[in-house]
Amino acid sequence: MPSPALPDERPRLYLEDLRVGQTFISASHTIDEAQMIRFASEFDPQPFHLSEEGGRGTFFDRLVASGWHTAAITMRLVVEGGAPIAGGQIGAGGEITWPRPTLPGDTLHVKSEVTEIRPSRSRPDRGIVTIRTDTYNQHDEIVQVFSAKLVVRRRPAAA
Amino acid sequence: MPSPALPDERPRLYLEDLRVGQTFISASHTIDEAQMIRFASEFDPQPFHLSEEGGRGTFFDRLVASGWHTAAITMRLVVEGGAPIAGGQIGAGGEITWPRPTLPGDTLHVKSEVTEIRPSRSRPDRGIVTIRTDTYNQHDEIVQVFSAKLVVRRRPAAA
Repeated sequence: MPSPALPDERPRLYLEDLRVGQTFISASHTIDEAQMIRFASEFDPQPFHLSEEGGRGTFFDRLVASGWHTAAITMRLVVEGGAPIAGGQIGAGGEITWPRPTLPGDTLHVKSEVTEIRPSRSRPDRGIVTIRTDTYNQHDEIVQVFSAKLVVRRRPAAA
Repeated sequence: MPSPALPDERPRLYLEDLRVGQTFISASHTIDEAQMIRFASEFDPQPFHLSEEGGRGTFFDRLVASGWHTAAITMRLVVEGGAPIAGGQIGAGGEITWPRPTLPGDTLHVKSEVTEIRPSRSRPDRGIVTIRTDTYNQHDEIVQVFSAKLVVRRRPAAA
Protein backbone atom coordinates (compact mmCIF):
# COMPACT_ATOMS: atom_id res chain seq x y z
CA MET A 1 0.00 0.00 0.00
CA PRO A 2 2.89 2.47 0.39
CA SER A 3 2.95 2.57 -3.40
CA PRO A 4 2.39 6.05 -4.86
CA ALA A 5 -1.11 7.05 -5.88
CA LEU A 6 -1.99 5.99 -9.40
CA PRO A 7 -2.85 8.80 -11.79
CA ASP A 8 -6.62 8.68 -12.14
CA GLU A 9 -7.59 9.85 -15.62
CA ARG A 10 -11.34 9.28 -15.29
CA PRO A 11 -13.47 12.39 -15.87
CA ARG A 12 -14.53 14.09 -12.63
CA LEU A 13 -18.18 13.93 -11.61
CA TYR A 14 -20.27 16.85 -10.36
CA LEU A 15 -23.62 16.69 -8.58
CA GLU A 16 -25.48 16.71 -11.92
CA ASP A 17 -23.50 13.70 -13.11
CA LEU A 18 -24.52 11.40 -10.26
CA ARG A 19 -27.55 9.10 -10.28
CA VAL A 20 -28.96 6.86 -7.54
CA GLY A 21 -27.86 3.34 -8.35
CA GLN A 22 -24.56 4.29 -10.04
CA THR A 23 -21.82 1.90 -8.95
CA PHE A 24 -18.03 1.99 -8.94
CA ILE A 25 -15.78 -1.03 -8.40
CA SER A 26 -12.19 -0.60 -7.26
CA ALA A 27 -8.99 -2.51 -7.78
CA SER A 28 -7.89 -4.77 -4.93
CA HIS A 29 -5.32 -4.72 -2.16
CA THR A 30 -3.86 -7.66 -0.27
CA ILE A 31 -3.16 -7.08 3.40
CA ASP A 32 -0.47 -9.11 5.14
CA GLU A 33 0.36 -9.68 8.79
CA ALA A 34 3.23 -7.16 8.75
CA GLN A 35 0.96 -4.32 7.54
CA MET A 36 -1.66 -5.23 10.14
CA ILE A 37 0.82 -5.22 13.00
CA ARG A 38 2.45 -1.98 11.85
CA PHE A 39 -0.90 -0.16 11.69
CA ALA A 40 -2.06 -1.58 15.03
CA SER A 41 1.22 -0.73 16.77
CA GLU A 42 0.67 2.89 15.86
CA PHE A 43 -3.10 3.26 16.17
CA ASP A 44 -4.83 0.29 17.81
CA PRO A 45 -2.40 -1.60 20.05
CA GLN A 46 -4.72 -4.32 21.33
CA PRO A 47 -3.40 -7.90 21.68
CA PHE A 48 -5.64 -9.34 18.91
CA HIS A 49 -4.27 -6.76 16.44
CA LEU A 50 -0.59 -7.22 17.35
CA SER A 51 0.15 -10.96 17.02
CA GLU A 52 -1.40 -14.34 16.36
CA GLU A 53 -0.54 -15.47 19.90
CA GLY A 54 -1.95 -12.29 21.41
CA GLY A 55 -5.24 -13.00 19.68
CA ARG A 56 -5.68 -16.44 21.23
CA GLY A 57 -8.39 -16.64 23.86
CA THR A 58 -9.81 -13.26 22.83
CA PHE A 59 -13.15 -12.55 21.12
CA PHE A 60 -11.50 -13.23 17.76
CA ASP A 61 -9.23 -16.07 18.96
CA ARG A 62 -6.61 -15.00 16.39
CA LEU A 63 -4.86 -12.03 14.81
CA VAL A 64 -7.27 -9.71 12.98
CA ALA A 65 -6.85 -6.27 11.41
CA SER A 66 -8.01 -3.19 13.27
CA GLY A 67 -11.35 -2.05 11.88
CA TRP A 68 -9.71 1.34 11.31
CA HIS A 69 -7.10 -0.35 9.15
CA THR A 70 -9.89 -1.88 7.06
CA ALA A 71 -11.43 1.61 6.87
CA ALA A 72 -8.12 3.19 5.82
CA ILE A 73 -7.49 0.59 3.09
CA THR A 74 -11.07 1.08 1.94
CA MET A 75 -10.41 4.81 1.61
CA ARG A 76 -7.32 4.21 -0.53
CA LEU A 77 -9.32 1.91 -2.80
CA VAL A 78 -12.12 4.51 -3.02
CA VAL A 79 -9.73 7.36 -3.81
CA GLU A 80 -8.25 5.35 -6.66
CA GLY A 81 -11.32 3.48 -7.89
CA GLY A 82 -14.49 4.75 -6.24
CA ALA A 83 -16.67 7.57 -7.53
CA PRO A 84 -14.32 10.13 -9.19
CA ILE A 85 -15.98 13.14 -7.59
CA ALA A 86 -14.89 16.62 -8.68
CA GLY A 87 -13.06 18.26 -5.79
CA GLY A 88 -12.39 14.94 -4.09
CA GLN A 89 -13.97 12.75 -1.47
CA ILE A 90 -15.12 15.26 1.17
CA GLY A 91 -16.87 13.22 3.86
CA ALA A 92 -19.06 14.85 6.47
CA GLY A 93 -19.48 11.49 8.19
CA GLY A 94 -21.43 8.28 7.91
CA GLU A 95 -22.37 4.94 9.36
CA ILE A 96 -19.81 2.17 9.54
CA THR A 97 -20.14 -1.50 10.41
CA TRP A 98 -17.64 -4.32 10.46
CA PRO A 99 -19.67 -7.54 9.97
CA ARG A 100 -16.51 -9.69 10.06
CA PRO A 101 -12.83 -9.03 10.63
CA THR A 102 -10.14 -8.66 7.98
CA LEU A 103 -7.61 -11.49 8.27
CA PRO A 104 -3.94 -11.74 7.28
CA GLY A 105 -3.68 -12.48 3.56
CA ASP A 106 -7.13 -11.13 2.73
CA THR A 107 -7.49 -9.41 -0.64
CA LEU A 108 -9.94 -6.53 -0.36
CA HIS A 109 -11.84 -4.59 -2.97
CA VAL A 110 -14.71 -2.15 -2.71
CA LYS A 111 -17.98 -1.53 -4.46
CA SER A 112 -19.51 1.94 -4.04
CA GLU A 113 -23.12 2.75 -4.88
CA VAL A 114 -24.87 6.11 -4.91
CA THR A 115 -27.91 5.71 -2.63
CA GLU A 116 -29.20 9.28 -2.15
CA ILE A 117 -28.70 12.70 -3.74
CA ARG A 118 -29.91 15.75 -1.85
CA PRO A 119 -29.26 19.26 -3.19
CA SER A 120 -28.42 21.71 -0.42
CA ARG A 121 -31.18 24.19 0.38
CA SER A 122 -28.85 26.75 1.94
CA ARG A 123 -25.88 26.35 -0.46
CA PRO A 124 -27.09 26.22 -4.09
CA ASP A 125 -23.58 25.35 -5.33
CA ARG A 126 -23.53 21.91 -3.73
CA GLY A 127 -25.39 18.88 -2.45
CA ILE A 128 -25.03 15.99 -0.04
CA VAL A 129 -24.64 12.61 -1.71
CA THR A 130 -24.84 9.35 0.21
CA ILE A 131 -22.58 6.65 -1.14
CA ARG A 132 -22.59 3.17 0.37
CA THR A 133 -19.23 1.46 0.05
CA ASP A 134 -19.04 -2.26 0.75
CA THR A 135 -15.59 -3.75 1.30
CA TYR A 136 -15.28 -7.37 0.22
CA ASN A 137 -12.67 -10.02 0.93
CA GLN A 138 -11.58 -12.65 -1.62
CA HIS A 139 -14.49 -14.91 -0.60
CA ASP A 140 -16.96 -12.13 -1.51
CA GLU A 141 -17.78 -11.71 2.16
CA ILE A 142 -18.38 -8.16 3.36
CA VAL A 143 -15.85 -7.00 5.96
CA GLN A 144 -17.04 -3.39 6.13
CA VAL A 145 -20.03 -1.29 5.12
CA PHE A 146 -19.59 2.47 5.14
CA SER A 147 -22.50 4.65 4.16
CA ALA A 148 -20.89 8.06 3.71
CA LYS A 149 -22.38 11.51 3.36
CA LEU A 150 -20.25 13.45 0.90
CA VAL A 151 -20.24 17.12 -0.05
CA VAL A 152 -20.44 17.31 -3.86
CA ARG A 153 -20.28 20.51 -5.91
CA ARG A 154 -22.51 21.44 -8.80
CA ARG A 155 -20.76 21.94 -12.12
CA PRO A 156 -19.60 25.56 -12.29
CA ALA A 157 -21.30 27.67 -14.96
CA ALA A 158 -19.21 27.95 -18.14
CA ALA A 159 -17.10 31.10 -18.15
CA MET B 1 2.41 8.24 17.97
CA PRO B 2 4.83 5.42 17.04
CA SER B 3 5.67 5.24 20.76
CA PRO B 4 4.95 1.84 22.32
CA ALA B 5 1.62 1.31 24.05
CA LEU B 6 1.66 2.42 27.67
CA PRO B 7 0.91 -0.28 30.20
CA ASP B 8 -2.67 0.36 31.32
CA GLU B 9 -3.03 -0.71 34.93
CA ARG B 10 -6.65 0.37 35.37
CA PRO B 11 -9.03 -2.44 36.42
CA ARG B 12 -10.94 -3.93 33.49
CA LEU B 13 -14.67 -3.26 33.25
CA TYR B 14 -17.35 -5.86 32.49
CA LEU B 15 -20.95 -5.21 31.43
CA GLU B 16 -22.06 -5.03 35.09
CA ASP B 17 -19.48 -2.32 35.80
CA LEU B 18 -20.75 0.13 33.18
CA ARG B 19 -23.40 2.80 33.79
CA VAL B 20 -25.00 5.25 31.36
CA GLY B 21 -23.29 8.59 31.87
CA GLN B 22 -19.88 7.17 32.88
CA THR B 23 -17.11 9.18 31.21
CA PHE B 24 -13.46 8.58 30.43
CA ILE B 25 -10.98 11.26 29.39
CA SER B 26 -7.80 10.38 27.53
CA ALA B 27 -4.33 11.84 27.37
CA SER B 28 -3.55 13.97 24.32
CA HIS B 29 -1.65 13.61 21.07
CA THR B 30 -0.22 16.35 18.88
CA ILE B 31 -0.38 15.73 15.14
CA ASP B 32 2.16 17.41 12.87
CA GLU B 33 2.30 17.90 9.12
CA ALA B 34 4.73 15.02 8.60
CA GLN B 35 2.40 12.51 10.29
CA MET B 36 -0.56 13.79 8.28
CA ILE B 37 1.26 13.49 4.97
CA ARG B 38 2.64 10.04 5.81
CA PHE B 39 -0.83 8.70 6.67
CA ALA B 40 -2.44 10.29 3.62
CA SER B 41 0.27 9.04 1.25
CA GLU B 42 -0.57 5.50 2.30
CA PHE B 43 -4.34 5.66 2.78
CA ASP B 44 -5.95 8.86 1.50
CA PRO B 45 -3.80 10.43 -1.24
CA GLN B 46 -5.95 13.46 -2.04
CA PRO B 47 -4.26 16.84 -2.69
CA PHE B 48 -5.65 18.54 0.45
CA HIS B 49 -4.18 15.76 2.63
CA LEU B 50 -0.73 15.73 0.97
CA SER B 51 0.57 19.32 1.08
CA GLU B 52 -0.34 22.88 2.03
CA GLU B 53 -0.08 23.94 -1.63
CA GLY B 54 -2.20 21.00 -2.79
CA GLY B 55 -4.94 22.13 -0.42
CA ARG B 56 -5.21 25.62 -1.89
CA GLY B 57 -8.37 26.21 -3.93
CA THR B 58 -9.99 23.03 -2.58
CA PHE B 59 -12.96 22.76 -0.21
CA PHE B 60 -10.58 23.15 2.74
CA ASP B 61 -8.25 25.68 1.05
CA ARG B 62 -5.32 24.22 3.05
CA LEU B 63 -3.70 21.03 4.28
CA VAL B 64 -5.98 19.04 6.59
CA ALA B 65 -5.71 15.55 8.08
CA SER B 66 -7.64 12.67 6.54
CA GLY B 67 -10.74 11.98 8.61
CA TRP B 68 -9.48 8.40 8.86
CA HIS B 69 -6.28 9.68 10.43
CA THR B 70 -8.35 11.55 13.02
CA ALA B 71 -10.26 8.30 13.56
CA ALA B 72 -7.06 6.27 13.94
CA ILE B 73 -5.54 8.71 16.44
CA THR B 74 -8.84 8.70 18.33
CA MET B 75 -8.63 4.90 18.55
CA ARG B 76 -5.12 5.06 20.00
CA LEU B 77 -6.27 7.58 22.61
CA VAL B 78 -9.29 5.37 23.42
CA VAL B 79 -7.20 2.20 23.76
CA GLU B 80 -4.91 3.95 26.24
CA GLY B 81 -7.37 6.21 28.04
CA GLY B 82 -10.96 5.40 27.08
CA ALA B 83 -13.19 2.88 28.84
CA PRO B 84 -10.91 0.01 30.00
CA ILE B 85 -13.25 -2.73 28.84
CA ALA B 86 -12.43 -6.33 29.72
CA GLY B 87 -11.48 -8.17 26.56
CA GLY B 88 -10.74 -4.94 24.68
CA GLN B 89 -12.53 -2.51 22.43
CA ILE B 90 -14.53 -4.82 20.11
CA GLY B 91 -16.49 -2.52 17.82
CA ALA B 92 -19.38 -3.79 15.72
CA GLY B 93 -19.67 -0.39 14.08
CA GLY B 94 -21.08 3.04 14.72
CA GLU B 95 -21.84 6.51 13.44
CA ILE B 96 -19.02 8.91 12.70
CA THR B 97 -19.04 12.61 11.87
CA TRP B 98 -16.23 15.08 11.26
CA PRO B 99 -17.66 18.54 12.11
CA ARG B 100 -14.33 20.25 11.33
CA PRO B 101 -10.98 19.09 10.05
CA THR B 102 -7.86 18.31 12.10
CA LEU B 103 -5.08 20.78 11.24
CA PRO B 104 -1.29 20.51 11.45
CA GLY B 105 -0.17 21.16 15.02
CA ASP B 106 -3.53 20.28 16.57
CA THR B 107 -3.41 18.58 19.96
CA LEU B 108 -6.24 16.06 20.23
CA HIS B 109 -7.80 14.36 23.22
CA VAL B 110 -10.96 12.33 23.58
CA LYS B 111 -13.86 12.12 25.98
CA SER B 112 -15.89 8.91 25.94
CA GLU B 113 -19.33 8.58 27.51
CA VAL B 114 -21.47 5.49 27.95
CA THR B 115 -24.82 6.33 26.33
CA GLU B 116 -26.66 2.97 26.18
CA ILE B 117 -26.32 -0.51 27.69
CA ARG B 118 -28.30 -3.34 26.14
CA PRO B 119 -27.87 -6.91 27.38
CA SER B 120 -27.97 -9.42 24.55
CA ARG B 121 -31.14 -11.50 24.38
CA SER B 122 -29.57 -14.32 22.42
CA ARG B 123 -26.13 -14.36 24.13
CA PRO B 124 -26.51 -14.12 27.91
CA ASP B 125 -22.74 -13.76 28.41
CA ARG B 126 -22.56 -10.33 26.76
CA GLY B 127 -24.23 -7.06 25.84
CA ILE B 128 -23.96 -4.22 23.36
CA VAL B 129 -22.79 -0.94 24.87
CA THR B 130 -22.94 2.35 22.98
CA ILE B 131 -20.10 4.70 23.79
CA ARG B 132 -19.96 8.17 22.27
CA THR B 133 -16.40 9.40 21.86
CA ASP B 134 -15.86 13.08 21.09
CA THR B 135 -12.43 14.08 19.82
CA TYR B 136 -11.42 17.63 20.75
CA ASN B 137 -8.67 19.90 19.49
CA GLN B 138 -6.73 22.32 21.72
CA HIS B 139 -9.47 24.96 21.29
CA ASP B 140 -12.05 22.54 22.73
CA GLU B 141 -13.67 22.28 19.31
CA ILE B 142 -14.96 18.85 18.31
CA VAL B 143 -13.19 17.41 15.26
CA GLN B 144 -14.89 14.00 15.39
CA VAL B 145 -17.85 12.32 17.02
CA PHE B 146 -17.94 8.53 16.96
CA SER B 147 -20.85 6.74 18.55
CA ALA B 148 -19.66 3.13 18.71
CA LYS B 149 -21.50 -0.09 19.42
CA LEU B 150 -19.18 -2.34 21.42
CA VAL B 151 -19.47 -5.97 22.38
CA VAL B 152 -18.91 -6.20 26.17
CA ARG B 153 -18.76 -9.42 28.19
CA ARG B 154 -20.45 -10.06 31.51
CA ARG B 155 -18.15 -10.85 34.40
CA PRO B 156 -17.48 -14.59 34.36
CA ALA B 157 -18.88 -16.52 37.34
CA ALA B 158 -16.23 -17.13 40.02
CA ALA B 159 -14.65 -20.57 39.69
